[in-house]
Amino acid sequence: MCAPLSEEEAAELAPLFKAIADPVRLRLLSLIACRKGGEVCVCELTGAFDVTAPTISHHLKVLKQAGLVVSERRGTWVYYRVNPHLLERLSSLLDPRPLTATSR
Amino acid sequence: MCAPLSEEEAAELAPLFKAIADPVRLRLLSLIACRKGGEVCVCELTGAFDVTAPTISHHLKVLKQAGLVVSERRGTWVYYRVNPHLLERLSSLLDPRPLTATSR
Repeated sequence: MCAPLSEEEAAELAPLFKAIADPVRLRLLSLIACRKGGEVCVCELTGAFDVTAPTISHHLKVLKQAGLVVSERRGTWVYYRVNPHLLERLSSLLDPRPLTATSR
Repeated sequence: MCAPLSEEEAAELAPLFKAIADPVRLRLLSLIACRKGGEVCVCELTGAFDVTAPTISHHLKVLKQAGLVVSERRGTWVYYRVNPHLLERLSSLLDPRPLTATSR
């Protein structure tokens, strides 16, 4: 995390953090990211939560619109995977280690 | 990012992402984190933004209440530093690399 963000970068990144700043979306993201093979059928996601299928669909749509997940329809079902490049960007941004290295 | 989050973990983490999901707070956090020595006087922060000093104070308070920054008053001024442990936790959570390693 060590060039201070410009106004433009901050304006671009804040909505991504907003998209993950919800407990259901955080759990969806971690369920998708942690799946071996990197892909999860929407049919498996709805069962993992105490909320209705339309609510899960809404949250997946928010993650997708932010670019954090991508989806592909195959036959009856839609399959989700995370966008590793975008997650890595957010992860690096919050990583305090580069700072520590710089200030030594 | 590779044990799916529990409901409790997600409920605890979502407010932290909400605290950083704002362009001014993201820039404040990066300004503080990137400062050599790890510490910034509030007197230097207000000058870096097109918003009023009370607005900066409000945003610093949100970051502080979330535990993302800590502050210390010395003489006239308050000095801020980031909480590296909490940032590292958020950073690791979003890091897609452990997933890649697991699924090889």
